[in-house]
Amino acid sequence: MSLITPRSAPGVLELLPREQIAFRWMLDTIRAGYEKFGFVPVETPVFENVEVLLGKTGGETARQVYFVQSTGAREQNQAPDLALRFDLTVPLARYVAEHEPKLVFPFRRYQIQQVYRGERAQKGRFREFYQCDVDVIGKDSLSLGYDAELPAVIHQVFTALGVGAFTIQLNNRKVLRGILEQVGVSDEACAQLVLREVDKLDKMGREKVVEALQKPELGLEAAKGTALLDLLSSQGTPDEILARLRALPGPSESLTKGIEELTTVLSTMKALGVPEKAYRLNLSIARGLDYYTGTIYETRLDELPEFGSVCSGGRYDNLAGHYTKSKLPGVGISIGATRLFQALLEKGVLQPQRGGADVLVAQVDPTLESRCGALAAQLRAAGLKAELFVTGAKLDKQLKYAERSGIPAVLILGGTEATQGVVQVKDMAARSQALVPEAEVVAAVRKIAGQA
Amino acid sequence: MSLITPRSAPGVLELLPREQIAFRWMLDTIRAGYEKFGFVPVETPVFENVEVLLGKTGGETARQVYFVQSTGAREQNQAPDLALRFDLTVPLARYVAEHEPKLVFPFRRYQIQQVYRGERAQKGRFREFYQCDVDVIGKDSLSLGYDAELPAVIHQVFTALGVGAFTIQLNNRKVLRGILEQVGVSDEACAQLVLREVDKLDKMGREKVVEALQKPELGLEAAKGTALLDLLSSQGTPDEILARLRALPGPSESLTKGIEELTTVLSTMKALGVPEKAYRLNLSIARGLDYYTGTIYETRLDELPEFGSVCSGGRYDNLAGHYTKSKLPGVGISIGATRLFQALLEKGVLQPQRGGADVLVAQVDPTLESRCGALAAQLRAAGLKAELFVTGAKLDKQLKYAERSGIPAVLILGGTEATQGVVQVKDMAARSQALVPEAEVVAAVRKIAGQA
Repeated sequence: MSLITPRSAPGVLELLPREQIAFRWMLDTIRAGYEKFGFVPVETPVFENVEVLLGKTGGETARQVYFVQSTGAREQNQAPDLALRFDLTVPLARYVAEHEPKLVFPFRRYQIQQVYRGERAQKGRFREFYQCDVDVIGKDSLSLGYDAELPAVIHQVFTALGVGAFTIQLNNRKVLRGILEQVGVSDEACAQLVLREVDKLDKMGREKVVEALQKPELGLEAAKGTALLDLLSSQGTPDEILARLRALPGPSESLTKGIEELTTVLSTMKALGVPEKAYRLNLSIARGLDYYTGTIYETRLDELPEFGSVCSGGRYDNLAGHYTKSKLPGVGISIGATRLFQALLEKGVLQPQRGGADVLVAQVDPTLESRCGALAAQLRAAGLKAELFVTGAKLDKQLKYAERSGIPAVLILGGTEATQGVVQVKDMAARSQALVPEAEVVAAVRKIAGQA
Repeated sequence: MSLITPRSAPGVLELLPREQIAFRWMLDTIRAGYEKFGFVPVETPVFENVEVLLGKTGGETARQVYFVQSTGAREQNQAPDLALRFDLTVPLARYVAEHEPKLVFPFRRYQIQQVYRGERAQKGRFREFYQCDVDVIGKDSLSLGYDAELPAVIHQVFTALGVGAFTIQLNNRKVLRGILEQVGVSDEACAQLVLREVDKLDKMGREKVVEALQKPELGLEAAKGTALLDLLSSQGTPDEILARLRALPGPSESLTKGIEELTTVLSTMKALGVPEKAYRLNLSIARGLDYYTGTIYETRLDELPEFGSVCSGGRYDNLAGHYTKSKLPGVGISIGATRLFQALLEKGVLQPQRGGADVLVAQVDPTLESRCGALAAQLRAAGLKAELFVTGAKLDKQLKYAERSGIPAVLILGGTEATQGVVQVKDMAARSQALVPEAEVVAAVRKIAGQA
């Protein structure tokens, strides 16, 4: 029989067990962070009706979508009526619109699921990847307090992930629009082009960007371009930057409103205890100017600046306008967990060290099978993950199995130990062993497994 | 603008938040049970290469598969090269064959992911549903001890799920074959047809089945058919049934081997502490005679017999023969969690009672925003899920929000409370309240939230 080459679909991140344990820990930590703030879980199906998914978007999105079709539908030459979700925002909008009467508002949901993009496979771009989203949706209106709560959530989650120092960068889309108006850019399409150039500041350098802003379709003369870059790259404390904004001559309605919003959000963040060193104002971040309408977030790891934003989001005026007449303003953030995990792994920030079990109960004497089984059960009852080497095998082989599997502790209960009422406890990392009275085995394992 | 009807794809189970919390709890409990025995997690991509997924199966399976195609591939009129997984066994086989040199054997993995079937939508049949699989894969050989460990895992998981009494039913495919040989059925295809009839025993009754067995293509005369049904529906303790099997005249090699295997499995189960009331031998269960080669499991809830098996599986000789020349015998079980959840919900065995947060910190005095924020942070630091009602609103509205959300405790910190160093703690279910010193608030909330 000819063999089929066993290989996973291209463009996905499939992990070996110890990596998967580390990734699972990361997703669990994010989830626990979201739940600590009382967000409730939502899961939506992997596919949505094509009409729902692409109804009003089309364009770039439609080109990246994976369509789904059963054999029957294909045989009948039908156009596909299902497609895989490409983000968690469209499913959220559909979910809220569909179930609105049964939901409690403000609706605070988190969703940790995979999304799918028919991208050309390349490093750091995945066709399947996890997004970890959290959003607060209001009915008719939504207090700015929630814009301040999300940085508290981000702070909690990234602290728990232990990925080193990070900075939450805040901006406000109305402020951004106001600043552009200051230099004469009030047209939306033009504003987007200008911001696309501004976005290249880090890469291209100041001079090149000022030059690009002078292109006819943008038409920002050098002085204005320079003034714009100066303002957008303002450094200092939030208070200092706000003061600078307030001092701008002849502020537009948009600028005034934006400054007001930022001021409220910053003061509530303080009240919620987000430490000041964890965030700063960055007037240059834009994040899809057309979608967000108020607060904007990006979060960068101080040690991994080249990674870009690890957690982004913002405030939007109306979540589900395509599906319902209800006005549903919201604010949300998203962590692209797959790409982040891969980067942390590569940089050695995260290391898959642990196996599945806390302890392996070895078997060296067939007559003690029941004793060993009972010992494993006792460890499990105490909340430990205890694996029994079910079958007889040489001790060497069992120890090697534990070592290769990343199991930190091994228990050996042979005839001698059994008559003395003790168990031999091996610490695999320390390469040490001790005879421990049966009653103290749980504590000894907890210590080795780092759960003391 | 015309609105798009917001509705989820047909044939899926989309849950409201409180149901989702209950379902999440169920999946977490299953996962914790698997992990307690040291199984390691594996996740595979939602799609596999068509060649891998359908290479050697085709037939019924191919008809139910969902094919996946990007816009580009569709435009080029290509045949789809990806399809959604329809179970977790084919992906496991591909995974083990692909990563074999990097895995540790026996390879003990669990996998909790959704699978996809292009079925006609009908009650209890889903197009997307969770499977919770656990398998042990050996290299070249695998001890029968693992066949005995899985009932211990099932026992742990279903006890933790709290779904009432359940019975693990055991059989052995070699025993089954041996019994059929006793009545003259030794051809594999014929054996399958006979077992399909036997499977209808509960529904059709004894007489009808004996009649059906007399059909020419089966050719079991009435006396033989009756003898077969008698044997297959043997009642009694495992020891009694084994004794009956051992007493059969002129046993075939298959029967002798099967009895031997069952005997070993049952004695190891005893050693592992699986309580005798939790399992029984049922010689009539067959579960895909063509796939399994030794031990077979089904698990039934005593109170929900009409549901059928909630956890099934068995021993197979070779997992990945389509992909590798390595011989990889294994044994595994699977829980179809989505269908089980829906049934338990309908029967009221599982009731979604709790919301996301353990406690809501209400806000009644804008000058105390920081105090309330700190209180919420303190509760979170103590491991509680604490939601802050971030924005000002009438207390009534906040209490109603907590009630509708299923949050069991509400804290109120107003001016009077603040000056006295106390917090008003409301137990929403008991409709009671108490003034509690700040230092004791965590304990009071834990008690109300059932975490004391």
